[in-house]
Amino acid sequence: MAVVVQKYGGSSVADADGIKRVAQRIVATRKAGHDVVVVVSAMGDVTDELHDLARQVSPLPPGRELDMLLTAGERISMALLAMAIANLGLEARSFTGSQAGVITDSAHGKARIIDVTPGRIRSALDDGAIPIVAGFQGVSQTSKDITTLGRGGSDTTAVALAAALQADVCEIYTDVDGVFTADPRIVRTARRIPWISYEEMLEMAACGAKILQLRCVEYARRYGMPIHVRSSFSNRAGTRISEHPAGAEEAAVEQAIISGVAHDRSEAKVTVASVPDQVGVAARIFHTLAAVGINIDMIVQNVSAAGTGRTDISFTLPRDDGQAAMAALSSLEPEVGYGQPLYDDQIGKVSLVGAGMRSHPGVSATFFGALADAGVNIEMISTSEIRISVVVAEKDVDMAVGATVKAFDLDDTEVVAEVYGGTGR
Amino acid sequence: MAVVVQKYGGSSVADADGIKRVAQRIVATRKAGHDVVVVVSAMGDVTDELHDLARQVSPLPPGRELDMLLTAGERISMALLAMAIANLGLEARSFTGSQAGVITDSAHGKARIIDVTPGRIRSALDDGAIPIVAGFQGVSQTSKDITTLGRGGSDTTAVALAAALQADVCEIYTDVDGVFTADPRIVRTARRIPWISYEEMLEMAACGAKILQLRCVEYARRYGMPIHVRSSFSNRAGTRISEHPAGAEEAAVEQAIISGVAHDRSEAKVTVASVPDQVGVAARIFHTLAAVGINIDMIVQNVSAAGTGRTDISFTLPRDDGQAAMAALSSLEPEVGYGQPLYDDQIGKVSLVGAGMRSHPGVSATFFGALADAGVNIEMISTSEIRISVVVAEKDVDMAVGATVKAFDLDDTEVVAEVYGGTGR
Repeated sequence: MAVVVQKYGGSSVADADGIKRVAQRIVATRKAGHDVVVVVSAMGDVTDELHDLARQVSPLPPGRELDMLLTAGERISMALLAMAIANLGLEARSFTGSQAGVITDSAHGKARIIDVTPGRIRSALDDGAIPIVAGFQGVSQTSKDITTLGRGGSDTTAVALAAALQADVCEIYTDVDGVFTADPRIVRTARRIPWISYEEMLEMAACGAKILQLRCVEYARRYGMPIHVRSSFSNRAGTRISEHPAGAEEAAVEQAIISGVAHDRSEAKVTVASVPDQVGVAARIFHTLAAVGINIDMIVQNVSAAGTGRTDISFTLPRDDGQAAMAALSSLEPEVGYGQPLYDDQIGKVSLVGAGMRSHPGVSATFFGALADAGVNIEMISTSEIRISVVVAEKDVDMAVGATVKAFDLDDTEVVAEVYGGTGR
Repeated sequence: MAVVVQKYGGSSVADADGIKRVAQRIVATRKAGHDVVVVVSAMGDVTDELHDLARQVSPLPPGRELDMLLTAGERISMALLAMAIANLGLEARSFTGSQAGVITDSAHGKARIIDVTPGRIRSALDDGAIPIVAGFQGVSQTSKDITTLGRGGSDTTAVALAAALQADVCEIYTDVDGVFTADPRIVRTARRIPWISYEEMLEMAACGAKILQLRCVEYARRYGMPIHVRSSFSNRAGTRISEHPAGAEEAAVEQAIISGVAHDRSEAKVTVASVPDQVGVAARIFHTLAAVGINIDMIVQNVSAAGTGRTDISFTLPRDDGQAAMAALSSLEPEVGYGQPLYDDQIGKVSLVGAGMRSHPGVSATFFGALADAGVNIEMISTSEIRISVVVAEKDVDMAVGATVKAFDLDDTEVVAEVYGGTGR
């Protein structure tokens, strides 16, 4: 009997009706002859409401206690889902992350999964029951305290559990029909991608496609666990993510050169001008930034202007880290000597992703040409083997995404995609 | 260093302000030099809201899942309380019932505590932290599933934990100033009882005084754990419950003949007329009722009317069990032969409780006289060594309580008591 892990996000279980609808879907899967293990997020806005409560009692709550608080969210949804399934005549048993054997490190609020020991889940399956597991949470290996996995944590729980149970597939149910060639809120004619490789999905996620978090895809790739992203509101085909195309529909699809266009408005750009063009200077700058915990994304360094011995370095980083970065640069300036750093948070990143571009020359020329035709100025460029990213003015992001979709024939003139919503956690 | 267990009910932690107020009280106790362990209920109406959610997805939710759901309530309040204490500069660590070592049987919704193994609580105390423990919940010894203790469960958690930690006292904080000689909602001049024995408190609780549940007092008596009932909204002295009076205030108080008057409107009366006056017939009736899980309270059997060989049996039981009892009696009738049973749910029970009545004759005469003077008819009477209970018409309950308070000088002409409210669970 095939084991299927199904994960339902917060928007799928936002209220009692949603929970009952999801219960029917689970029961249908079970009756189709599969062993089903379910991972569920907190209902709709519950996590936000718990965060609000925390803020009301403490401006800076301890991580251990915040995790204890937030994990009440999945506890509620999982118990309700188990009840709804029982009401349809099948046995379901809910399990906390700890009970399901999700063992993590002790980094509260962003714990990493160390091991999954799903003994109680296997027992429930052996008893013919449907296990319902709380997403997003685990238990620290050392302190035995409850932890949470941070953003996208429920998806990671699902993939990790699927890997530990050697499931056939991990289905991620959300409120959109799958992964699209571009965000359908920006390009209404964006096309659903029937199949995408881990590698490309990783680039899409890293570049701002919000449907799956990076770490969940990384986990799936490491264990070779196929992911199937689907809507819990429809029966459409969704998107399969795996090493190679598999299944009837996907086998017929020739891999496209370009998978899609991702965009990201969460970054800012810092430019440090007149940096001494000497060995080790760039390293000192980025070492200083790393020491205060700042994740740098793109870095561009121009060649020195002739004879000056000075160069400009630009980099992008999360806007949330902007203030800390500028403070660190100010404190380093007396030692190294450079101009007043410039900070710009009115930028956006647009990324073209596709494994096919490895073997197809001219992709970057087409990309840059499309942007130029649309009157979009490129401020920075960064490339990998399967991705080209550009930084543009924030106001130009929509225009750039639209022009790129057209240039690479990524739109679907027949189906108008549904609008993207939140994907839970 | 003295260990003090403090339990705060749902009305004390109903919102963020309540939680912050309770945190200050806990910190003050800690700074006064005591080791504090806190037991907390779910916030205000949270448990009711979770019950509502359950009803929306299933008419009859499985007990295991209902317990999983409801325990989210204390998880939220305990984490918030720990945050609020941390915000005042002391370390607090929240623990679920399971983490605190509250081991129960597997009777979901009404589990009984089998053992308490508070290893993590002791470690937290050793580290100088304040442990915050979820009331009302535990973990099944056999199935390892989460259980709840049922009504009054948080008080029982507090007493059980206090006993296991060999605490000096278990303080139960609620929204009233202690135990009163009568319900102040009925008799506004009811007097606070400064000290009461376990025995009398058990009778008060069994007879409808809602401030403490029977099982919590039973647990405290078994382990000799002193209880101190106080308001979390004031600094008044409250009521101490122990084997013997202790402490400055209580030592000076001569034990009163009568502790107080309790009343109960939750029962109904069943009368079975023309029952054959033969050995074993009453046993068959009550065996039949016990077999369907009905708890009988008072039983009165009159002597046979001369020559008839028949007698009448009346008993009281929870109104909730009325329908089941009448059905059981109907099915037994053909075997035994008796008249159509009569069901009356328009009754109330008024009980006079006091260890002093053992050695003071005439208490019942004064009690019945006071009721007669007030024009209240007595339908049934039942007595123990320290209690006299009467069943009266429900409409006469207030009148009966008031008349009894006056007759035994149980009122306080100086202080008008605050009104009783819910006491959480």
